[in-house]
Amino acid sequence: MKIDMLTLFPEMFSGPFDSSIIKRARDKGLLEINFVDIRDFAGNKHNTVDDTPYGGGAGMVLQAPPIMRALEHVRSQRGGLLARVVLMCPTGLPFNQNWARDLAREEHLVIICGHYEGIDERVRELAVTDELSIGDYVLTGGELPAMVVVDAVSRMIPGVLGEQASAEDDSFYQGLLEYPQYTRPRLYGDLPVPEILMSGHHEKIRRWRRRQALLKTLERRPDLLREEVLNSEDRDILLEIIEKIQSVI
Amino acid sequence: MKIDMLTLFPEMFSGPFDSSIIKRARDKGLLEINFVDIRDFAGNKHNTVDDTPYGGGAGMVLQAPPIMRALEHVRSQRGGLLARVVLMCPTGLPFNQNWARDLAREEHLVIICGHYEGIDERVRELAVTDELSIGDYVLTGGELPAMVVVDAVSRMIPGVLGEQASAEDDSFYQGLLEYPQYTRPRLYGDLPVPEILMSGHHEKIRRWRRRQALLKTLERRPDLLREEVLNSEDRDILLEIIEKIQSVI
Repeated sequence: MKIDMLTLFPEMFSGPFDSSIIKRARDKGLLEINFVDIRDFAGNKHNTVDDTPYGGGAGMVLQAPPIMRALEHVRSQRGGLLARVVLMCPTGLPFNQNWARDLAREEHLVIICGHYEGIDERVRELAVTDELSIGDYVLTGGELPAMVVVDAVSRMIPGVLGEQASAEDDSFYQGLLEYPQYTRPRLYGDLPVPEILMSGHHEKIRRWRRRQALLKTLERRPDLLREEVLNSEDRDILLEIIEKIQSVI
Repeated sequence: MKIDMLTLFPEMFSGPFDSSIIKRARDKGLLEINFVDIRDFAGNKHNTVDDTPYGGGAGMVLQAPPIMRALEHVRSQRGGLLARVVLMCPTGLPFNQNWARDLAREEHLVIICGHYEGIDERVRELAVTDELSIGDYVLTGGELPAMVVVDAVSRMIPGVLGEQASAEDDSFYQGLLEYPQYTRPRLYGDLPVPEILMSGHHEKIRRWRRRQALLKTLERRPDLLREEVLNSEDRDILLEIIEKIQSVI
């Protein structure tokens, strides 16, 4: 996958993109990231790319022309075509694991990192195909959100993760929060590892983990427990829990 | 605010924490970030801090003892007290703007970045006060989520942002997605700036923006349009929209 990253702060990406899974994907040649500094397309001697909003208000708005020129530059480098142009902005649709899987299928992505108070609306109308937000909180710019998207998407590109199983076990991959994990030592302070995990009964362990995942999700994120993520075993487990509660009330 | 950041990858933070709002907050002395490398507390000659999960399964789990030793080290440096200990993990509660405001009131935060498949459950039982997730997607570790939290929290520390107004205008601060913004040029290609924004009628502009924010939120994030975010003007605007629709059907 090739990603063209349009940003005013390319230096922000150095730490996260030179470590961990993103570095591995780049080293393996599965991911190529090209930074495009929007300021290089300012087109004026002071290199300004923002201006005050029409209609008044605090803050500065990124102007359309520098961004559109940067996109033209990318288009010419990519043989005249731009596939998806993703704008990271707080008003975007909520990015989630389905989005990560979807974007991972693209051969080429353009990501625009918004900044300042916002971006001239006409960029959206003229060039943007997808607007994404990583969550309901206010951040200084689109750079951290872009890193989050690239991390989540990279993990879904075949060949990036060592063991595919590892990606599939993670929270949200199977629609539930992950069950508790334990590793050595077996006893830490006065806290032992649950007996069942050392029983060697693979089937019992699997069912215990599914039960813990259901209980954790029920407690913390009931919004995730929609009908489509529950299989018939889950229903049995949930019925067992109801019976257990009913037996004590 | 002082933040102790427990991580296996302190080098990941260099770009984001040396730029933008976080750099400004650090330069002003309003934010002090101390990195604690969990590996320094491995306590074995190979510096390993992870092991296979009890009960089997893919991936590695961060062990409890190195993290607990790192927390003890932080506690001794902070005069024996640890206020909030936040664990970044996919099973945490959804981080949002209310969380940002809440955490911004603390004088001291500890943030633990999870990694690998997870973290030994006993760390949660013994030390963690808050578990947070930044969104419903799978990331490689807690480092990017920790950066997101620090960015959002920094913006809420008094004195960090130049103009308080700028923080208050942003999406989610007032519960709605932000209205469209426009800046120079007045005409870009064949797309003009909406006339009303150049009318000079401050009251009309304010109402137009609120209307656009309501419409955008209605279209993209109806889940945000809860009763408590709507004021009486909003209700009037929404009634006007209903009337307009009813007049054409």
